[in-house]
Amino acid sequence: MLVGASQETGSVGHAVLTNLLREADRFELHAVNPHKLVIPGAHCHTGIQTVPPGPALAVIAIPARLVPDVLRKLAAKGIGLAVIISAGLGKTTEPGQEMLRVAREAGIRIIGPNCLGIILPHMGINASFASHDAPAGELALLSQSGAIASAMVEWAAPHGVGFSAILSIGDMAQTGFDELLELLAADPQTRAILIYMEGLDDGRAFVKAARAVTAIKPVIVLKAGRGTVAGRAALSHTGALAGSWEVYRAAFHEAGIVTASSLDALFDAAAMLDDVPELPGERLAIVTNGGGAGVLALDAMEVTSAPLAELSDDTVSRLDAVLPPGWSRANPVDIIGDAGSARYRAAMEAVLADDGVDAVLAMNCPTGLLMPGEAARAVADAAGSVPRKKPVIACWLGDANRASSHEVLGAARIPEFSTPAQAIRAFGYATAARWARVQILPDGASAPDVDAIVRGDAIIDAVLADNRHLLSEIEAKGLLAAFGIPVVSTQFAATAELAEQACTELPAPYAIKIVSPDITHKSDFGGVVLGLADAAAVRQAARAMAKRIATRFPEARIEGFAIQPMIRRKAAHELFAGIACDPSFGPVILFGAGGTAIEVIDDKSIALPPVHLERAKQLIGETRIARLLSGYRNVPATDQTAVAEVIAALSNIALALPRIAELDINPLIADADGVVALDARVVLRK
Amino acid sequence: MLVGASQETGSVGHAVLTNLLREADRFELHAVNPHKLVIPGAHCHTGIQTVPPGPALAVIAIPARLVPDVLRKLAAKGIGLAVIISAGLGKTTEPGQEMLRVAREAGIRIIGPNCLGIILPHMGINASFASHDAPAGELALLSQSGAIASAMVEWAAPHGVGFSAILSIGDMAQTGFDELLELLAADPQTRAILIYMEGLDDGRAFVKAARAVTAIKPVIVLKAGRGTVAGRAALSHTGALAGSWEVYRAAFHEAGIVTASSLDALFDAAAMLDDVPELPGERLAIVTNGGGAGVLALDAMEVTSAPLAELSDDTVSRLDAVLPPGWSRANPVDIIGDAGSARYRAAMEAVLADDGVDAVLAMNCPTGLLMPGEAARAVADAAGSVPRKKPVIACWLGDANRASSHEVLGAARIPEFSTPAQAIRAFGYATAARWARVQILPDGASAPDVDAIVRGDAIIDAVLADNRHLLSEIEAKGLLAAFGIPVVSTQFAATAELAEQACTELPAPYAIKIVSPDITHKSDFGGVVLGLADAAAVRQAARAMAKRIATRFPEARIEGFAIQPMIRRKAAHELFAGIACDPSFGPVILFGAGGTAIEVIDDKSIALPPVHLERAKQLIGETRIARLLSGYRNVPATDQTAVAEVIAALSNIALALPRIAELDINPLIADADGVVALDARVVLRK
Repeated sequence: MLVGASQETGSVGHAVLTNLLREADRFELHAVNPHKLVIPGAHCHTGIQTVPPGPALAVIAIPARLVPDVLRKLAAKGIGLAVIISAGLGKTTEPGQEMLRVAREAGIRIIGPNCLGIILPHMGINASFASHDAPAGELALLSQSGAIASAMVEWAAPHGVGFSAILSIGDMAQTGFDELLELLAADPQTRAILIYMEGLDDGRAFVKAARAVTAIKPVIVLKAGRGTVAGRAALSHTGALAGSWEVYRAAFHEAGIVTASSLDALFDAAAMLDDVPELPGERLAIVTNGGGAGVLALDAMEVTSAPLAELSDDTVSRLDAVLPPGWSRANPVDIIGDAGSARYRAAMEAVLADDGVDAVLAMNCPTGLLMPGEAARAVADAAGSVPRKKPVIACWLGDANRASSHEVLGAARIPEFSTPAQAIRAFGYATAARWARVQILPDGASAPDVDAIVRGDAIIDAVLADNRHLLSEIEAKGLLAAFGIPVVSTQFAATAELAEQACTELPAPYAIKIVSPDITHKSDFGGVVLGLADAAAVRQAARAMAKRIATRFPEARIEGFAIQPMIRRKAAHELFAGIACDPSFGPVILFGAGGTAIEVIDDKSIALPPVHLERAKQLIGETRIARLLSGYRNVPATDQTAVAEVIAALSNIALALPRIAELDINPLIADADGVVALDARVVLRK
Repeated sequence: MLVGASQETGSVGHAVLTNLLREADRFELHAVNPHKLVIPGAHCHTGIQTVPPGPALAVIAIPARLVPDVLRKLAAKGIGLAVIISAGLGKTTEPGQEMLRVAREAGIRIIGPNCLGIILPHMGINASFASHDAPAGELALLSQSGAIASAMVEWAAPHGVGFSAILSIGDMAQTGFDELLELLAADPQTRAILIYMEGLDDGRAFVKAARAVTAIKPVIVLKAGRGTVAGRAALSHTGALAGSWEVYRAAFHEAGIVTASSLDALFDAAAMLDDVPELPGERLAIVTNGGGAGVLALDAMEVTSAPLAELSDDTVSRLDAVLPPGWSRANPVDIIGDAGSARYRAAMEAVLADDGVDAVLAMNCPTGLLMPGEAARAVADAAGSVPRKKPVIACWLGDANRASSHEVLGAARIPEFSTPAQAIRAFGYATAARWARVQILPDGASAPDVDAIVRGDAIIDAVLADNRHLLSEIEAKGLLAAFGIPVVSTQFAATAELAEQACTELPAPYAIKIVSPDITHKSDFGGVVLGLADAAAVRQAARAMAKRIATRFPEARIEGFAIQPMIRRKAAHELFAGIACDPSFGPVILFGAGGTAIEVIDDKSIALPPVHLERAKQLIGETRIARLLSGYRNVPATDQTAVAEVIAALSNIALALPRIAELDINPLIADADGVVALDARVVLRK
């Protein structure tokens, strides 16, 4: 049923009607408009009342203020699903709230509002105002932008890419990515899913739903708005992350979703997954009639880091027999520019038969000697003739070329690209989707013991009771220690004299730091003194420090001093580990290079908890400083397991103590002998 | 004249003949083949003897061994230019050498051998075996790969891109990039130049020729083979750079050449430069009927870092009058999905009239409401109507869309792209070419005084006389000091006792290092001891060191010890600066993060000398460590001028002392007070 059907060209109601009419013989189409319409192929009504009960789907393209009332009438007809194209029904608007209330009461599921509509090509339903129809196929598209969905529809047909569903979800007032992902996971016609996303309200629900899907089908996402970092002021630097692209990327990783870098990349991924939703392996062989094109493919592989297949001696001998002398005798296989059909086919067959090859990229550079269509035929024949079927990807350079090879390759389900970079990028997405699937996260997480949670909660209770949200350094370290994170033992002393006494508990030499709720970056105000030889020096330094800060920052409340033994480790690294909270994904775990230059160095990786030991090691590997941690020259390798244990412990803290808003350990000192947290800051939620 | 013309389909001689015949009415075509041919439109000969004197150009497509003899006969006919398509004429082959000899004696200029041929569309000459003809236009293409040239020809026609010349240069036996660049610089029909490059023999000549061209025309290069770093063993780590992509990139920068990252990118650049060879400025405004597409364009701009234009209040008011309420009221200008022709045109006119806008990206997302061709017409009309003409770039999403807008936009010389990333990337290349042109390198280089060169040469003479190629640390520092680079004063002592005595010349505390021609990484063998309080400690440490090294590395010849005062600078940075030699570009200057982890950190930038002070500052800015050098928290900014002076001094050394093969300063200690070279290694050419 279409509510708001129109015969006025250029109107949304007319565009949707035109699309629906195209295959209206496959279902019963009821068109509703207060004016009496006559439309061949549709039953016309001036009101919903006259529509007979039964329609499964209603499409609504009418002014926003009329939508709630129409929904009420649809409920009476037993409608279960309404696609609301109309805009102006935001969550804060009155008709928007009314729309949701009616839908909830009537049990109507809403897609939209403010969307392009939905297209279900296998059922012949195009309930959208897209300018074209989409061919039936095995890809599903979920798009938060109608314009991008529409561009994808336009792009797909000439590229021979088909869809199981195109769902433009607009404002996601009721139905979001998570529900639709669950639906698509179960849909047998969908073999891979593409997503265009602008933002999420409930990131956790999305990750959970996506995880279930990516275990069985590849999911590729294009996230728009990467540059717009939520620049809100933050007490600690972790806070600035909130809502940023980096958190989304971590969440996609966690969910097994592959990230496309641009719309072009999403198109390439679509072309690939449409024909090859699943790869048997990732060792790629390249067969080309142009050496330059082969080199460009290798250059592109540097980025995706997919392994180049190594040809067996057997295959090289087979190729020797069919190729002219002077061929490359290795992968990429350059069959030389004067290659004809027979040489293409023989080379492809030899390479496809190699057990060390999982997939083959066949390339064709235009020459005046062999028609591109003939080359395509030879490649398609070879792909069809080998006993064990392997994916073949085609790169036919030049667009004019493409037209003549298109039909042959399309029929053989060989995805086709027009440049080496596109082909390799698309293959990269397929391998990434494969990795996301085969990578099983170990569940060997060491859950925190109850005692740790009780001790952590007690510290937090005391701080809140004191009407504070910032833990003192000593409280913060106590919390870390409860969860098994090694901390440097620290004593609190209210006065310089007590600081001197505190030294009897600790080994010399000493470091002292100011304890003040008002000073965030202690060293900036002379609030840190290192390398004090004995207790007397500590007393003197504490006095001088109190005086200094009173001058430089008179408003600061000074509570006392933290005294700790100097940690001297030769060739130790200063790391950082922490917890931040994202508005849509909740707590995230951070790791990276630490020290006072942390913001400037900006070397970090992010994961969503739970972070088990193995995932923590991956997280370490994603940073630049990981290269230093592996040891070099005469610096031995750092104990990375000890570092990973700290990250896993932070994951436990994040999950067990939800009242924590931000937690920074900086620096976390690490070397071959293990780790120790020198300083920590913990901020509680307001 | 075509030597090796053929009527056998699938042969090179036939393909070239077919291409030449297409416009043979514009010139006299002589076809030579030992068998008697009859070709309408061509004069046929069974030998060169019967060809009348006069042809300007000979195309040769015959077996390699026959080429030298044919060249001799062509010389007799007064031929000046021969395009040799035949392969198998490499520099080390006998016919290849003979070919060069004959050409030299006869004064024939050779293009090729082993190439696709040349296409000069304005003259109607297609002397190639490309599968299509190229339309006439203003772009020139120089390609080292026939396959890539051929792909470019295929791609160009459907995209409406035309060429002034397509030159496939193959093996470059005689004519290389530099001669052809000089030719194209002077060619009035060429407004921009594209290059596909695999490698260079004489990098310096290329840079010199390119510099002269880029001052007047944009040059874009796609360099293949980026991943294949020449992995030769090197005495110091700078040696590993030789022939690497990084040196090419530095050379391109020096020459004002813009680098394309892939063949796709080269295509995009071609489409852009074909219509817009020159930009008046780089402030870009975006007008779109789809918000999502606008966001994707912004995401792409994060990579190119082109500035987004800021709309004037006046423009915003003008747009308020023509756009529906709720438009973005800022750049990008979202004219909303239901925009019609009139709204497109009005919005474009308002934005184009803004003095703060240098160029406009017009975007169209497909909708069922407005035909893409109509939107294109509105944009083209707006572009033509404003009094001060500004470049307009189009992004019409979806390929189906493109077909209908193509003609309108092409006629208006508006370059057209099908995704936001492509459009922004292409605009980025145009702005980069503009920057390469407007950026005038200051010539305020302080040339080294003659005294410095004399002193440097004397040190080198002494080392070579001693039959060595590695300078001692003290010699190396003497050389640096001669060129004005601050070094830490260092004394040499042959024995532990002499080391103790040497301390009287230097302020305490001390550091000592082993002096041995066999030990490259001193600290790995315990050959460095720091923080020695007095002369006695130096003696003890020197003894212990000699003993330790005798155990760990018994073969090492120990000459003595280098003693220097400890340099203690709080919060100083360890930098690196050096000279390496590239086989095709000669000396290159390096700068980056230093210290013992230098290879692991891998943070460096490269330039070709001469490196003036301003360029040295750019070089610093290209590294990651530059962010630390600008200061942060309580660490003051480093004296970057002092660092730049060291780099400029190295450039002087590289040019004045060509006998140096490699020079490393590591670490170069730098802070707010200046710089000092703590250690240096200099290796001379063998």
